Amino acid sequence: MINNLKFNEKGLIPAIVQDADTSEVLMLGYMDEEALRRTLSSGEVWFFSRSRQELWHKGETSGSRIIVHELWKDCDSDTILVRGKPTGPVCHTGNKTCFFQQLTKQDVEASHQGET
Amino acid sequence: MINNLKFNEKGLIPAIVQDADTSEVLMLGYMDEEALRRTLSSGEVWFFSRSRQELWHKGETSGSRIIVHELWKDCDSDTILVRGKPTGPVCHTGNKTCFFQQLTKQDVEASHQGET
Repeated sequence: MINNLKFNEKGLIPAIVQDADTSEVLMLGYMDEEALRRTLSSGEVWFFSRSRQELWHKGETSGSRIIVHELWKDCDSDTILVRGKPTGPVCHTGNKTCFFQQLTKQDVEASHQGET
Repeated sequence: MINNLKFNEKGLIPAIVQDADTSEVLMLGYMDEEALRRTLSSGEVWFFSRSRQELWHKGETSGSRIIVHELWKDCDSDTILVRGKPTGPVCHTGNKTCFFQQLTKQDVEASHQGET
């Protein structure tokens, strides 16, 4: 099944992380095949860091690891969903989720005005 | 704010779609800047179809549109989270979510065996 996954041209697949209890979406990371293997075998989330170009055991530095409860793949096998429990704030800003900034219609209008 | 978003080298940004009531993760799609503008201004989800290379009003064919409740961006502005309500099954398979196939440790082991 892991071989059937569709990694992109950089060998990566996006992985959504969702809190297994609250169902809050916490972050989106990218896994290469090795990160996915380690995630499945260790029960903790591993990513491939696109900025550092290396395997990244989430929480290795911050201490906020993510314990895997379930992993799912989507219908066309090019996205992973991790349902898990973080041991601390997932975001490097200290927020529990990386999605803490809302986008509104005004953002489009402001952007349009900026172009004139 | 929309101009501050980081679209990738193909001009796309991944957008997670989550059910606003149940918090179930339904799918991951990709938006270009125009799809995001239309999503924000129309209140329904638009994507950019990578396979067809064209703007895609989600549900235009299937009838399963997604009504936007809230849009969020993540800490580094390279992922969008849509919280919304689908008007029908989101997945082309007829499932309400695209994430209906679970990955397990056995998938890694099976994959390793396949390599020997």
